[in-house]
Amino acid sequence: MSFTDLWESLLPAGRDEASGGYRRHAFTAAEAACRRWFQEQGTERGLRVNADRNANLWAWWDTTARDGGSAIVTGSHLDSVPGGGAYDGPLGVVSAFAAIDLLRERGFRPGRPLAVVAFTEEEGGRFGVACLGSRLLTGAITPGRARALRDADGVGFAAAMRSAGYDPDLIGPDEGLVAGIGAFVELHIEQGRALADLGAVVGLAEGIWPHGRWRLDFTGRADHAGTTRLDDRHDPMLPLAATILAARTAARRHGGLATVGRVAAEPGAANAIPAVARGWLDARAADQATLETMIGEISAAAGAAAREHGADFAATAESVTPAVAFDAALRDRIASLLAARGCPAPVLPTGAGHDAGVLAARVPAAMLFVRNPTGVSHSPAEHADAADCAAGVEALAAVLADLAGR
Amino acid sequence: MSFTDLWESLLPAGRDEASGGYRRHAFTAAEAACRRWFQEQGTERGLRVNADRNANLWAWWDTTARDGGSAIVTGSHLDSVPGGGAYDGPLGVVSAFAAIDLLRERGFRPGRPLAVVAFTEEEGGRFGVACLGSRLLTGAITPGRARALRDADGVGFAAAMRSAGYDPDLIGPDEGLVAGIGAFVELHIEQGRALADLGAVVGLAEGIWPHGRWRLDFTGRADHAGTTRLDDRHDPMLPLAATILAARTAARRHGGLATVGRVAAEPGAANAIPAVARGWLDARAADQATLETMIGEISAAAGAAAREHGADFAATAESVTPAVAFDAALRDRIASLLAARGCPAPVLPTGAGHDAGVLAARVPAAMLFVRNPTGVSHSPAEHADAADCAAGVEALAAVLADLAGR
Repeated sequence: MSFTDLWESLLPAGRDEASGGYRRHAFTAAEAACRRWFQEQGTERGLRVNADRNANLWAWWDTTARDGGSAIVTGSHLDSVPGGGAYDGPLGVVSAFAAIDLLRERGFRPGRPLAVVAFTEEEGGRFGVACLGSRLLTGAITPGRARALRDADGVGFAAAMRSAGYDPDLIGPDEGLVAGIGAFVELHIEQGRALADLGAVVGLAEGIWPHGRWRLDFTGRADHAGTTRLDDRHDPMLPLAATILAARTAARRHGGLATVGRVAAEPGAANAIPAVARGWLDARAADQATLETMIGEISAAAGAAAREHGADFAATAESVTPAVAFDAALRDRIASLLAARGCPAPVLPTGAGHDAGVLAARVPAAMLFVRNPTGVSHSPAEHADAADCAAGVEALAAVLADLAGR
Repeated sequence: MSFTDLWESLLPAGRDEASGGYRRHAFTAAEAACRRWFQEQGTERGLRVNADRNANLWAWWDTTARDGGSAIVTGSHLDSVPGGGAYDGPLGVVSAFAAIDLLRERGFRPGRPLAVVAFTEEEGGRFGVACLGSRLLTGAITPGRARALRDADGVGFAAAMRSAGYDPDLIGPDEGLVAGIGAFVELHIEQGRALADLGAVVGLAEGIWPHGRWRLDFTGRADHAGTTRLDDRHDPMLPLAATILAARTAARRHGGLATVGRVAAEPGAANAIPAVARGWLDARAADQATLETMIGEISAAAGAAAREHGADFAATAESVTPAVAFDAALRDRIASLLAARGCPAPVLPTGAGHDAGVLAARVPAAMLFVRNPTGVSHSPAEHADAADCAAGVEALAAVLADLAGR
């Protein structure tokens, strides 16, 4: 199957035809279609497909070499943010299968196990915690905390998982599986346009900025919008609005990033002062101290605005990820290999979290980025050129051949 | 049946036991329970109950007097805002039935028809247009516009109406019904605490401030929260936040009211810059010119903030109601009557819209307010003391006896 055919075979799942955006939340019908696609691709290639206890999908090319050794794993995720693009996640999984096709065409036979993986709920689009599948696998989140997560409709993680045919009683770390991984290489569309600016097709990740999500809850008092005097109000929407602006100011001041991409008011009547106004803050910075300073400034501004409007303020960390530095030896090995093939791969920092960042705490991990000409990400407009995708597959195949060769 | 028993018989419908708040949106199961309650109360009293073509409910005490004459109508609405209180609307309907009970106990026989009414979707809590039932009845909104309304889940007004057993093909003005109304008197819990400050139990409405709801749409560009440089963003959440604060400033400057009680972001991912940020502005002022000045200032601030952040801004008027001055002769007649009974009723302006305000364009209309000790409204904490409710029923009975007497 050509890369294009393989790529296009996944495109319809979870796509909104009007916007072109995707909604492939964990354990939904759209994501189940992605899982069936994974199963079919693995099976067609004679790979051994299974799900681990955390519903991460694996397709194994087992080695016939006698000594074997720890496995080389590649892949990414198939879920999307709401209204996301086609590339974030799927490009890494499609490229993994395509790289295996290339290796087979060229007669490659692995000297150690080689696996394609698709991790569960990488975006946290349904249950709010990013990289949930890889965090559970590596023990970075407890099964109890995962089971307590609920989606926006109040459906629990365990119930959703069970409805998709997986047993939530089994979730948790899998030390044997992790111990068997020699290296993890995740290919991903670039989420920015540094490669375009540098004139490069493929890049390598240096590390991931520390980042997190905080739920900001402002609690006031519901009242009538048409009769309550301004001075009698406890309107929580006003401090939320002030905090959204303060977050941008703090990010600007510290060279970081701050975003409020989701908001809600309760009860949400157009003619009532809300009882609760809520925003979700995504904040990222180059280092932990800077991130903490930013969060401190934003919290202080939120608290002051809440007091000014007679509301209460509370912040809850929903998902906080420390800085990740990818394995330098693995990165240097890949960089040399690609440079020797005439495909120099600049090393880039990134503000985005990835399963590779979670895995990096336990196994040597690396990331290959494929050029994104506009830099747009988490949007239907997200795009990579077909020629660049093909170059990404070639680069990944070369890396896998080097790492998993006899 | 005592007032207390009557009052308590309606309380369970649509109540959230955790918060004590109500969710009685038009054509939902909770609101259907309220409609059954109305049917039962009318039937128990031997009243002729029917629904008009706009699903407003009527319970008629027909006169046996030979000359008859135009009807005296009292009542209010049974639907609620999301998370609303028990009194806003239902107090007027319960008090209407209780006043009829009082009149009967006292041997009163109407000299003209006397009706209790419960109007559909007064709060606009489901379809966004307040006083929808009375607007349709009087022709203040076209059937076509009403049929095009959709709720937050995309369910159309017509489909919802049909599912509740009413025929949406019939909606529209009913000139015969309106022409037969001699006067409409709506009793309502006060939505403020002016009566408490004045030491009065019952008040009379002077008029209703001009007011409206505008949907504010900011359109930017979805992008990744962790990788998009601040300078590359088109984040529509920032101008929405700035506009929420600007609305408060404009309301303060002009002595009006401005509230954003509902917000939404699309696609609403915590880790993505939203493509669209939306807020619903409720604005009211003492006169039309002041309201227009406020809206102009808020729109100008919104447009400037949108431009600053590379977003587009559009405002859509969802429901705009001009100033209402209630019938002075009717008000003076009621005021004299109540004063003579030792229950002086101060005359109050209000910022809240009511079906009586819609009816006032076509028939003499008046409103009786019952004291609200805290002034809290559109909230589970909304409350009137039982003794004040009883005084309200006495006052209403006296008004009805005066207007509908032989």
